[in-house]
Amino acid sequence: MINKLISNIKRTGAPIVVGLDPNLKFVPSHILNKAYEAKGETLEGAAEAIWNFNKGIVDHVYDLIPAVKPQIAMYEQFGLPGIEVYKKTVDYCKEKGLVVIGDIKRGDIGSTSESYAIGHLGHAQVGSRLLAGFDEDFATVNPYLGSDGVKPFIDVCRKEGKGIFVLVKTSNPSSGEFQDREVLCDDGKMRRLYEIVGAKVTEWGMDIMGDTYSYVGAVVGATYPEEGRILRDIMPKAYILVPGYGAQGGKGADLVHFFDKDGLGAIVNSSRGIIAAYKNEKYASYGEENYADASRAAVEDMIEDIRTALG
Amino acid sequence: MINKLISNIKRTGAPIVVGLDPNLKFVPSHILNKAYEAKGETLEGAAEAIWNFNKGIVDHVYDLIPAVKPQIAMYEQFGLPGIEVYKKTVDYCKEKGLVVIGDIKRGDIGSTSESYAIGHLGHAQVGSRLLAGFDEDFATVNPYLGSDGVKPFIDVCRKEGKGIFVLVKTSNPSSGEFQDREVLCDDGKMRRLYEIVGAKVTEWGMDIMGDTYSYVGAVVGATYPEEGRILRDIMPKAYILVPGYGAQGGKGADLVHFFDKDGLGAIVNSSRGIIAAYKNEKYASYGEENYADASRAAVEDMIEDIRTALG
Repeated sequence: MINKLISNIKRTGAPIVVGLDPNLKFVPSHILNKAYEAKGETLEGAAEAIWNFNKGIVDHVYDLIPAVKPQIAMYEQFGLPGIEVYKKTVDYCKEKGLVVIGDIKRGDIGSTSESYAIGHLGHAQVGSRLLAGFDEDFATVNPYLGSDGVKPFIDVCRKEGKGIFVLVKTSNPSSGEFQDREVLCDDGKMRRLYEIVGAKVTEWGMDIMGDTYSYVGAVVGATYPEEGRILRDIMPKAYILVPGYGAQGGKGADLVHFFDKDGLGAIVNSSRGIIAAYKNEKYASYGEENYADASRAAVEDMIEDIRTALG
Repeated sequence: MINKLISNIKRTGAPIVVGLDPNLKFVPSHILNKAYEAKGETLEGAAEAIWNFNKGIVDHVYDLIPAVKPQIAMYEQFGLPGIEVYKKTVDYCKEKGLVVIGDIKRGDIGSTSESYAIGHLGHAQVGSRLLAGFDEDFATVNPYLGSDGVKPFIDVCRKEGKGIFVLVKTSNPSSGEFQDREVLCDDGKMRRLYEIVGAKVTEWGMDIMGDTYSYVGAVVGATYPEEGRILRDIMPKAYILVPGYGAQGGKGADLVHFFDKDGLGAIVNSSRGIIAAYKNEKYASYGEENYADASRAAVEDMIEDIRTALG
């Protein structure tokens, strides 16, 4: 799957991923009203609105981009109907040829992590059959529980040809609270916790390599360009998924050091900046009705911004 | 909800929680076959089997225990039908008067954590209505992203009268890989990462207090009794959820220091040791058909073991 991601990136010339993180506040009123008329002001109605909102965006941008990253929390907030639409979104994007990165940030102890890995990337043994639950192409994984929480994901990836992105340095303001702590290492030197996690990503990914990059990637926020530079060196074979571009403050120029010299090695996510583009003054002229056209324009501008930054 | 948890513990005299972490390997063949006959070897069939398995156990133990802790990963592995049974299990246990701790280990950046909190502990605004998604009483939360990943959970808890348990020192063998690292603190002293996270739990929980304990608790593994002692001191007002008893190796005698002098302050989880008790030599005489009676006997023995340890 890392090879497919890279080939999609090369084909589109766009090292970007659109974060499908729908929020009812972003859904235009014509879609919202139609969903409530059909299903009422219910969780089903909210889920229906989100599905139609997503579909509009995907239909308008899929040819420009290599991948999408649905954030499962935005669906989970609407309970079962929400998760049903998460699955529908994953399936639809895959039909469109997109690589789907499930932003699920799961992580637990061994046997439990295995169940998450099976549900999202693998197949469950049910009697004599092997059945897929959510079937994303990649998943994001939280490393706080250590190797035996991460390795079950890697085992499933190896079997299924799928991949993970491990949280290393997240994009949020307080990510430093634990991730930036200076830690005493076995060689007597002090390093930041994110550097230690980054070194583990390299170790975990070593024997599960695609053609040029590992199936084990990392999440490093666009809002921390200096840390991105350091981590690029520590994790030479890890693809870096970079959230925090756009609405969170990251700019193309901040991203240069996340990439390798060949322009590969990183994929930049934008969520609100794309899916709620019509709410941004810059794209407001499209109007609410044409929200998906505004998203397409925002994708084109983002690609241009990153191309310019990478030279 | 922390007050209800404590009152349930006092009423039952049992500071324990049964982990509803079903696995098809634990489900007796009569339940499995019936489910496959009704729904085929499908995700729906697997979910049906797990639901009937769970119901049998809950019906046989609910009067002995204050709380249950369903592990959502075990349901998520079966995709949508699995999550539907997670919800059904949560609802059924609440009807039985049990406190439900959703072991979901979620955690993300601010607005995304908020969505998880809304979905699991709160209410989503849908048009003019406020609707609950999963509606557990407590949830477990991963702290790796720092305060702005945890605080949205606390905000929802404050509004809803619910609680969280933050992962501090987990029960698995490699939990030390990051959690035990020695970290340089602002006062120039070195402390373990789990001590720093523990201090944050105290800080986060300070102004969201129940009658005697905070709505913000912590997860500390039974497999690390010495760390339990240290963390009890660092987090005097946090209820400690203690996994790792039984199948993972923790014993009653290891648990003494997790509790306060009054026998409160901690609640000990056992999953496999209870729900798959009939597979244990000690309870094998019950037979597969009577798996739920074996679970009841295992609950009684666990309560006895902990009572003896606490004197």
